[in-house]
Amino acid sequence: MVHQTLEADTRLDDAFAALSDSTRRGILVQLGKGPATIGELAEPTGMTLTGLKKHVQVLEDAGLVTTAKVGRSRECRLGSERLDDVMSWVNFYQRLWERRLDGLEAYLTLQRGTDE
Amino acid sequence: MVHQTLEADTRLDDAFAALSDSTRRGILVQLGKGPATIGELAEPTGMTLTGLKKHVQVLEDAGLVTTAKVGRSRECRLGSERLDDVMSWVNFYQRLWERRLDGLEAYLTLQRGTDE
Repeated sequence: MVHQTLEADTRLDDAFAALSDSTRRGILVQLGKGPATIGELAEPTGMTLTGLKKHVQVLEDAGLVTTAKVGRSRECRLGSERLDDVMSWVNFYQRLWERRLDGLEAYLTLQRGTDE
Repeated sequence: MVHQTLEADTRLDDAFAALSDSTRRGILVQLGKGPATIGELAEPTGMTLTGLKKHVQVLEDAGLVTTAKVGRSRECRLGSERLDDVMSWVNFYQRLWERRLDGLEAYLTLQRGTDE
């Protein structure tokens, strides 16, 4: 985990950055229900097509979405990125965090022992 | 998950954004081993103190790090944010993603049925 390649690091950067916006997370939820055009994705957000396209581009660059021209519109679907690396990193962090608490508890127990 | 408050959305934005940089993820790993000063955190990265402070600020704003002045230096530790919301979101996304594959498999099975 700690010794990651530069490429894996960049992929993880892109995935976390793509998820750091509630509009983009909303697009993913929407596409989880099935493919949708840029227009269909824009409608519930009240955004312009251009504004929404930029968000889709960020998701596409991170492998979270794929798009294809279908007739006059562009159809979007969930991409190949399953977020396993993101999940592993967050799991790893939570273990670190719990260990920190274990250390704090051990310290407080030690303190209580000294005070008695 | 989908019906989140604006505040929860912003917290999630901040957490994902804070994690979207390998230097910041490295700082968290380092602090998982124990508290460290800005100087100690800067050393392995080759960054300036000012550059590193900016990353620590982003982590502090997201609740991932706390800092306190100790003598002449600023000591950093892992903060109170356990990333449970980030974990829930990623879990939720992975379920969406798997369901999408289920749908695709069902479609392919149907296609095979039609071809035979």
